[in-house]
Amino acid sequence: MIRNATKTTVLRALRTRAVSRGYASLAEKTFPNEPTAPAVATAIPGPTGKEKIAALNKVFDSAATTFMVDYEKSNGNYIVDADGNTLLDCYAQIASIPLGYNNPTLIEAAKDSKTISALVNRPASGNFPSTNYAEQISGLLKYAPKGMTEVWPGLSGSDANELAFKAAFIYQAAKKRGNADFTPEELESCMRNEAPGSKPFAIMSFETAFHGRLMASLSCTRSKPIHKLDIPAFHWPKAPFPQLKYPLDQNVEYNTAEEKRCLEEVEKLIKGWESPVAAVIVEPIQSEGGDNHASPNFFKGLRDVTKKHGVLLIVDEVQTGVGATGKMWAHEHWGLDGDGLPDLVTFSKKAQSAGYFFRDPAIRPTLAYRQFNTWCGDPAHIMITNAIFREVAENNLPAKAQEVGDYLYKGLTAIQSETGKISRVRGKGQGTFIAFDLASGAQRDQFVVNMRSLGVLVGGTGAQGIRLRPGLLFEEKHAKIFLDTVKKALEQSKA
Amino acid sequence: MIRNATKTTVLRALRTRAVSRGYASLAEKTFPNEPTAPAVATAIPGPTGKEKIAALNKVFDSAATTFMVDYEKSNGNYIVDADGNTLLDCYAQIASIPLGYNNPTLIEAAKDSKTISALVNRPASGNFPSTNYAEQISGLLKYAPKGMTEVWPGLSGSDANELAFKAAFIYQAAKKRGNADFTPEELESCMRNEAPGSKPFAIMSFETAFHGRLMASLSCTRSKPIHKLDIPAFHWPKAPFPQLKYPLDQNVEYNTAEEKRCLEEVEKLIKGWESPVAAVIVEPIQSEGGDNHASPNFFKGLRDVTKKHGVLLIVDEVQTGVGATGKMWAHEHWGLDGDGLPDLVTFSKKAQSAGYFFRDPAIRPTLAYRQFNTWCGDPAHIMITNAIFREVAENNLPAKAQEVGDYLYKGLTAIQSETGKISRVRGKGQGTFIAFDLASGAQRDQFVVNMRSLGVLVGGTGAQGIRLRPGLLFEEKHAKIFLDTVKKALEQSKA
Repeated sequence: MIRNATKTTVLRALRTRAVSRGYASLAEKTFPNEPTAPAVATAIPGPTGKEKIAALNKVFDSAATTFMVDYEKSNGNYIVDADGNTLLDCYAQIASIPLGYNNPTLIEAAKDSKTISALVNRPASGNFPSTNYAEQISGLLKYAPKGMTEVWPGLSGSDANELAFKAAFIYQAAKKRGNADFTPEELESCMRNEAPGSKPFAIMSFETAFHGRLMASLSCTRSKPIHKLDIPAFHWPKAPFPQLKYPLDQNVEYNTAEEKRCLEEVEKLIKGWESPVAAVIVEPIQSEGGDNHASPNFFKGLRDVTKKHGVLLIVDEVQTGVGATGKMWAHEHWGLDGDGLPDLVTFSKKAQSAGYFFRDPAIRPTLAYRQFNTWCGDPAHIMITNAIFREVAENNLPAKAQEVGDYLYKGLTAIQSETGKISRVRGKGQGTFIAFDLASGAQRDQFVVNMRSLGVLVGGTGAQGIRLRPGLLFEEKHAKIFLDTVKKALEQSKA
Repeated sequence: MIRNATKTTVLRALRTRAVSRGYASLAEKTFPNEPTAPAVATAIPGPTGKEKIAALNKVFDSAATTFMVDYEKSNGNYIVDADGNTLLDCYAQIASIPLGYNNPTLIEAAKDSKTISALVNRPASGNFPSTNYAEQISGLLKYAPKGMTEVWPGLSGSDANELAFKAAFIYQAAKKRGNADFTPEELESCMRNEAPGSKPFAIMSFETAFHGRLMASLSCTRSKPIHKLDIPAFHWPKAPFPQLKYPLDQNVEYNTAEEKRCLEEVEKLIKGWESPVAAVIVEPIQSEGGDNHASPNFFKGLRDVTKKHGVLLIVDEVQTGVGATGKMWAHEHWGLDGDGLPDLVTFSKKAQSAGYFFRDPAIRPTLAYRQFNTWCGDPAHIMITNAIFREVAENNLPAKAQEVGDYLYKGLTAIQSETGKISRVRGKGQGTFIAFDLASGAQRDQFVVNMRSLGVLVGGTGAQGIRLRPGLLFEEKHAKIFLDTVKKALEQSKA
């Protein structure tokens, strides 16, 4: 105990000196008033929170409300609830706050006259783009995945994926049609939602995938029945996703065979499905369905088999994108190149706007008004995206997420060995994109509650998992609080 | 000429006196520097615009770009392009700018600390709503259609409609299921996108309807093949929409019979379609498909037949909502009441955010995470919506749209009689929501170009129509410029 106290004192002194000499960490420089520890004084939600939830529930379905947030008081990695409880946020609005609460760089971007103008003069950018739209779009492309040369903006992850599906359908139909015109039968039948005008194309996805909740994206989502029950769906194929053993580097033989089995099934489905597969959509890490990983070899194999059959590969980086995996885009871990790069990459969440990137000019429809809608993006949010991408790249935040991730992974595997209460720690080498399992769904739910009352906010994933989804200014000092709290919460769960 | 000049001088003097005595119109008070007339100095787009379009086209599909806009210079009802040309805007970003460019009330709302916070701390409002979310949502409901008590926010018109479809599917399945649990077959089959878990429900829409461009909303859209070609669609029924003769009040007998025929077909489709119809979706005025009107009796009949068969009625007010038809919500023209009100009303465009209103608590799913997504709305835009709704209601702008609309309708019918070059002037009593036809699609396209080079921006609708979609601060003086320009553009088309 004495040794620990001494160590803590020394570390504190060092940090203070570092700050006073200008060696403050980026989080410290960005959030000079960030709390130094969680502070919980009431139940969460507390009395004020409960009152506010009841009021909200009268006008807006609040069945899923965890707690009400005072966003103006939240600061950096700390979220403050309606009762003034201050929690270390390792979930970040379902993995969507990139740079902490009230980041001054983003506040500056929000106050920019171009952002204000985009909010009050919301443009129909397909017909009447702003004179600065090229600059905004180019700002996205500057930090786009390797090889990507164009972007089509959308409004959410579901929207981005469905826009990418439309691009894939139009591309595949054009490829088949060549330079021929639409036939009279096509023009007429599509108005009845029938072939040959309405094409019976399919999008293939994977078991336990999550790609959104609108009707076509939901048809690709295979995470939980509650997402899908009662909603009409397209009859599209579902391939098995590798069920790997962790740690990955200690189960290479088993995992290689499992990935091979899945790729064979992918090819079988492409060849044998009742309708032509226009594209395969895949997450680099299945993020809602349990944080399921696969190796770069699996994804390379997937690229090979899609290319072999003329099927487009859509990489859904909605949750994995923008730095948290240790790379700006998670699929950069796969080492793809040239013609082997993905055809389309979708983004949202931490980008704070949405859309799909692509690299082959043939993905752009040759006629106007095929990929089109009133707003064609949301420049107010795109202004924020520009500030986020710049901040992430200029401060090399993916590399910092890798450092903190290594520290977290090491800490969690130690807890796994010491307590035996958590298992399948996963995400090694994938930045802070780390998960682990509890012994059951019920124990997981209890663990989330325990963590919250100890002042740390985490999210569940899959049937019994916990996922870490902090922002990119989550540093070692925050990670240390997280790990200490995990130990405490696991001790509580014994009692 | 002398008489006209004298009249103009007198009018100008009167207006100046009115302004100096505080009798300025709302547009004059709101936009003290609004241009007094269009000013066109180059082709549109001009040299700067063309250069900027070429640059944009490298990174973003600009095939549909009309011209590039300098939004910061645009003012009130006048839009300014990249070459400094100043046009009277009667199209308003595809019917989506409600209160003119750079409206100071909206700028104030955009600079509000709550808006800034919502932009930089974008909340996952389903789990972690802001302490002020109830206030924001209630602000929408204050001006919602009669009877509506709840709202579920979305991000666009397509998104709002698809969220409403999901609500309808979940409601209809729950009604049939009663208090029973999901069956094991449902839980298992929905993961394969198959019945009985994935329900083969249908949404019925109308011939020439437009309800959006995502996969389920596009299945309801029946406006033009170019919107639908090559995209997979749900096999959902399409009812005929009344093809009325205008002016409506001079063709009552014909129109009544036509509406009766369509309603009979609606009932036949509900009873005989291959899958249960969960809801019918209808626009109060078909706005992309040609500005097609129907009478209050038709809509009352539609309400009766849907109610009789337990089918929900979704009124799509994406384009008609927020005042332009002379009512805050266009369906208020129908005189529905009590149980006869629509079940769901969707909104977007002029609201600048999106969502669906509803009134029966049974439309809210009984379990959490059925109607859910990461953001569950967009509070930054909802802050703007609140300012818009307040401004529209407090200044009684629907009534003012009706006054200006009467003036426009009268002017256009006079032009119709005098020139014989336009036909089917429609939208009497529907505020500024007015349209008319040219003799052909080619002549319509030429007319749009003529109008633009004379400094007035209008939009097409359907095969050969022009639609007026100005904002709500478009006043008689703007209408006069519009009418004068229509005459000039028609004269040009003779040459």
